Amino acid sequence: MQLNRILNFNAGPAALPLIVLEEIRDSFLDFKGSGMSITEVSHRSKWFDDVINDAIERTKRLLQLDDKFKVLFIQGGASMQFAMMPMNFLHNGKTADYVNTGTWSTKAIKEAEIQGKNFNVVASSEDSNFSYIPKNINFNKDAVYAHITSNNTIKGTQWASFPDTGGVPMIADMSSDIMCRPLDMDKFGMIYAGAQKNIGPAGICMVIIRDDMLGQVPDTLPSMLKYTTYASKNSMYNTPPCFAVYTVQLVMKWLEETIGGLDKMAELNDEKAGLLYDFIDSSDFYNGTAATDSRSLMNVTFRLPSEDLEKKFVGDAMENKLGGLKGHRSVGGCRASIYNAATKEGVATLVDFMKTFEKENG
Amino acid sequence: MQLNRILNFNAGPAALPLIVLEEIRDSFLDFKGSGMSITEVSHRSKWFDDVINDAIERTKRLLQLDDKFKVLFIQGGASMQFAMMPMNFLHNGKTADYVNTGTWSTKAIKEAEIQGKNFNVVASSEDSNFSYIPKNINFNKDAVYAHITSNNTIKGTQWASFPDTGGVPMIADMSSDIMCRPLDMDKFGMIYAGAQKNIGPAGICMVIIRDDMLGQVPDTLPSMLKYTTYASKNSMYNTPPCFAVYTVQLVMKWLEETIGGLDKMAELNDEKAGLLYDFIDSSDFYNGTAATDSRSLMNVTFRLPSEDLEKKFVGDAMENKLGGLKGHRSVGGCRASIYNAATKEGVATLVDFMKTFEKENG
Repeated sequence: MQLNRILNFNAGPAALPLIVLEEIRDSFLDFKGSGMSITEVSHRSKWFDDVINDAIERTKRLLQLDDKFKVLFIQGGASMQFAMMPMNFLHNGKTADYVNTGTWSTKAIKEAEIQGKNFNVVASSEDSNFSYIPKNINFNKDAVYAHITSNNTIKGTQWASFPDTGGVPMIADMSSDIMCRPLDMDKFGMIYAGAQKNIGPAGICMVIIRDDMLGQVPDTLPSMLKYTTYASKNSMYNTPPCFAVYTVQLVMKWLEETIGGLDKMAELNDEKAGLLYDFIDSSDFYNGTAATDSRSLMNVTFRLPSEDLEKKFVGDAMENKLGGLKGHRSVGGCRASIYNAATKEGVATLVDFMKTFEKENG
Repeated sequence: MQLNRILNFNAGPAALPLIVLEEIRDSFLDFKGSGMSITEVSHRSKWFDDVINDAIERTKRLLQLDDKFKVLFIQGGASMQFAMMPMNFLHNGKTADYVNTGTWSTKAIKEAEIQGKNFNVVASSEDSNFSYIPKNINFNKDAVYAHITSNNTIKGTQWASFPDTGGVPMIADMSSDIMCRPLDMDKFGMIYAGAQKNIGPAGICMVIIRDDMLGQVPDTLPSMLKYTTYASKNSMYNTPPCFAVYTVQLVMKWLEETIGGLDKMAELNDEKAGLLYDFIDSSDFYNGTAATDSRSLMNVTFRLPSEDLEKKFVGDAMENKLGGLKGHRSVGGCRASIYNAATKEGVATLVDFMKTFEKENG
């Protein structure tokens, strides 16, 4: 039977590698000979220990993490991290720096504000509708962290390289570009990523945190809201989201064994994004919305000459089994999210469709 | 091909109905003709809207909830609720009552204590190793809620009927017995349940909350930690754990359409537990650990004459494809968790095994 699958350009939840989905399906009634589904095995079993430990070990190898870093799995998405960061690090009047590059940065800042914490917004691209990544930022020496959003899903911008914080530990929300390329972790005190864009399903957030940051966490926080609880219990203080951890494990395995690591992944992502941006730049019909030097490898945002044409574009694309091309409801326009799991062939098919659509409607 | 499945008596994550697992497997690469996996569809799509709304509507029908109640899905398990309750309801010096019936009640109390909130432990069965459910409790009129754990997974006890709180809204952790029987919601201001025992996979907590409780939530809490955020956004302020919501939906569908509702479910659960307790009571080899009038329909805890025999029992059972019979690591002994998804035939098979084991080792 022909498999009914579309090319999925959703911004998140997003496409997962087919090989990962197939393994989940094939093992779903009998995980590793346990006679149980992965949703039914105890999180205190050897079966699940192997899953979570392998997910962590593969993550460490892929990002070349040394033992200063702990890999944690926390529920609640990046939004929960927006609240946990100030709670864990901004006690006793301490202050943090935030860079505002869009909707998600703004939400992160709002959660520090709600808690009445001290912070400074040291740079923002709000003056230009968040279409670029700010440069030459002065960070405050007394900040205990400097927060950035490494990729802005809605606006289609991404930090090409990371800023010099003058020694302040950087914390990055990498929900939409974690594992898209190798990472120099030396600059980071913590990174976190809701999994549902690049590394798994919704319902799990990967948090990678350095020992000295863990050392700052006060004992007095609620158990589920302090990083130390997760670090000391291998993310199993209570029942973790087992199915989601398993899916993340399989995505890490795919990255290592099928793709061949993050250098290879970065090459592929460059090629995929290149196909789309080169075509957009060659066309007068499609217009990229992000500043050229701030373009995202993951979310390619563009406009057509009119909103009517944009609506027709999204509809016609869906009829051609190209899904998820509508821009975020807050900004309109079109967006192709081409995360790790999007194939080069899929992106080429999209470019072909865009050419045809331009011919017929341009 | 013969399906390799065991009889799963795990305490949680636990057995799910086979029909639910099969539907997930069969739709896993193409959910409802979307050409995407349930893990890949947007939570802002019609596909997912139908899933979450159907899960909620079925929950309301099963529990006969009127419009005073909202059904929410929150991440972080029951442990996150232990922290959210005092945060949301015990501001400005308000106080709550707690009944301590075991490990999970104790943890809930601890989280109120960590936050420095006012509370009273109005009853406890700690004096007898939590082997019974306290009676004749005096609740405080000024408490804004009275917290109980409706079923104690580790100790194998359950409230047969709920106490009279004299009008104080009861909040119950129903993680291990939600939907095991009909419920008179009039007494409850809120109930909550980590899904991984009776209604779904790990990674999602169902919270059913009454309007007047929502009305007490302060605006000043972090967005992800206040019930009002979930209530005002149909649990989609941020990306919900879509796969887990979908699984809960299918379990609710199974409860309505295959089982035939909660009256039927209660009958079945009485029969299943009856098979086990009647046999245990008839045997001198097996000894139930919970007080007879406090016995749980969900977790049947028992001891054998020696720890060596208990170890052999668990091992021999596993060889006979009866899994998860080891007691919780904190108490030892044996435990058969027979949640909704455990079949009567499965329980009968367990009783047969227990008889044989007694003959051979008694």
